[in-house]
Amino acid sequence: MRYYIGLDLGGTNLKYALGDATGNILVKLTRPSWADKSQESIFVNIFAAVEKLLEIAKENELDVAAIGVGSPGNVDFNTGRIVGQAANIKEWADAPIRERLQNRFHLPVWTDNDANMVAIAEARVGAGRGFNHIVFITVGTGIGGGIIINGQMYRGGNYNAAEIGHMCINYQGKKCPCGGTGCLELYAAAPAIVNLYISKLREAGYQENEDLISTELIFDRAKNNDVLARETMDFACKMLGIGIANVVNLLNPQAVIIGGGVAEAGEDYIGRVRRYVFEHALKPSLIGLRILQAQLGNEAGVTGAIILAADNTLNFTN
Amino acid sequence: MRYYIGLDLGGTNLKYALGDATGNILVKLTRPSWADKSQESIFVNIFAAVEKLLEIAKENELDVAAIGVGSPGNVDFNTGRIVGQAANIKEWADAPIRERLQNRFHLPVWTDNDANMVAIAEARVGAGRGFNHIVFITVGTGIGGGIIINGQMYRGGNYNAAEIGHMCINYQGKKCPCGGTGCLELYAAAPAIVNLYISKLREAGYQENEDLISTELIFDRAKNNDVLARETMDFACKMLGIGIANVVNLLNPQAVIIGGGVAEAGEDYIGRVRRYVFEHALKPSLIGLRILQAQLGNEAGVTGAIILAADNTLNFTN
Repeated sequence: MRYYIGLDLGGTNLKYALGDATGNILVKLTRPSWADKSQESIFVNIFAAVEKLLEIAKENELDVAAIGVGSPGNVDFNTGRIVGQAANIKEWADAPIRERLQNRFHLPVWTDNDANMVAIAEARVGAGRGFNHIVFITVGTGIGGGIIINGQMYRGGNYNAAEIGHMCINYQGKKCPCGGTGCLELYAAAPAIVNLYISKLREAGYQENEDLISTELIFDRAKNNDVLARETMDFACKMLGIGIANVVNLLNPQAVIIGGGVAEAGEDYIGRVRRYVFEHALKPSLIGLRILQAQLGNEAGVTGAIILAADNTLNFTN
Repeated sequence: MRYYIGLDLGGTNLKYALGDATGNILVKLTRPSWADKSQESIFVNIFAAVEKLLEIAKENELDVAAIGVGSPGNVDFNTGRIVGQAANIKEWADAPIRERLQNRFHLPVWTDNDANMVAIAEARVGAGRGFNHIVFITVGTGIGGGIIINGQMYRGGNYNAAEIGHMCINYQGKKCPCGGTGCLELYAAAPAIVNLYISKLREAGYQENEDLISTELIFDRAKNNDVLARETMDFACKMLGIGIANVVNLLNPQAVIIGGGVAEAGEDYIGRVRRYVFEHALKPSLIGLRILQAQLGNEAGVTGAIILAADNTLNFTN
């Protein structure tokens, strides 16, 4: 049996794990990602993580076959490099992830962006098990995603597919920093939800410490029948539902999986989004469609990285 | 060498042709489709068309290996049946196309919807040659399309993918008969373009025979600097451009091919749509992206049907 190392680099933590091709995790560890340090320091930290796992593998006589790395930013899957800047890690621009890790460890290295990692993990061993065509959507500070077609990650011509947050749902809407107009994340991502609620509070003349307002607080209040919170949540769910209906009309997936911080609100949120999807999408595409909450939580990133490494190494050697 | 029969059933004509796996056409014929008659009559007409081609094949000692059929409506690719109603052919609901043709001719029969046929033809032997990930969009009375991923038709879970015309680009917009809100085809399909121009004419106090107004006339006038026609055309191009930008952000294709009656206006139209796509889509997805006019015109449907038959028969016998 062969084992794989999966890394999940984030703005705060570096998660790293050892597992098998089915996404089973034997060891999972976490350390700070040193995201505010130099690119070299971040690599040194990653090297230390990999060394730790190789040590554990050796002690247990496990054969490590490859390394998978999930990273923020636009990843060129072909070269294993970051393309341009990466969100939340200032010095990570153009980082040659594969090159550095391959030179150091003499193992095959595969790397992809973090949303794709979560998508493939959810598809294979999470909420998407048993489906072939899956769209994963993560709703947090922004809205991102991953598309699985015929059980495989679909990355697009420039490895930039699944930018679901930048779908225009209002051509008369606000300009988005991305250059587009009326993008979904201006209506349905966490900052939009918080801002909408704050503006409703102000309009109604309430005075609150606005720094304490989060989507969690809003969803909690909505549950307790705070009218403004309910309106806010309903609007966010409707916008996301319309965005997902667009994806459903375009891709006719078998399952849509919703993850990310906002989705942790659970069935109150997912159920409401689901109703709006079913209200707006074409009827033939809704037959059998499942709209599900992501299942893997915190472990999704490393699990996806392990599956990425295993998938490609198997393809590689076949 | 093996040859294939391709049929393209439309609301007016039935086109039928004999060709090879590369989409080369040897004979192409047309007859009325009898779209206003009974389902049985439409099948009798199709049978006659196939018999004619089999006769020609026999005279020329050509071996016919399979039949491909493009049809309006939602086609279940797996069973080769129409699902529900088909636009423009009243009695064609639930037509068991494969079953009827296979029983009659004892040849493998493959069937798919007409937009997919044109998409696969354009991808293989038309404007999309050389690209792997292609989105085809047809703009006419409605807006439809086809998605090619890794050179293969992508049909979705219920064979209902690529409903590009029903993408919401204005969540505050008009209700669409489909059940959605602010669908792209309410802004960018031919009837929307004609209606917008008529309303502009009325507003300006012009009196014209409104029955004579077509997208062709509007685009002609736009070319000749009719201000209202130019505004109309620009709006339609902007809406389509925003819709395509959404598709580009989601799928990051290498090429987008625009066909259908409206696109016959050519580069005046395509060029303007292209500018709006480049203004609205994410920069990394635009690198190398081609936005092209369809090339195959009238022959695309039968060519696609021939390629469909050839592709699947090859897969079938391998």
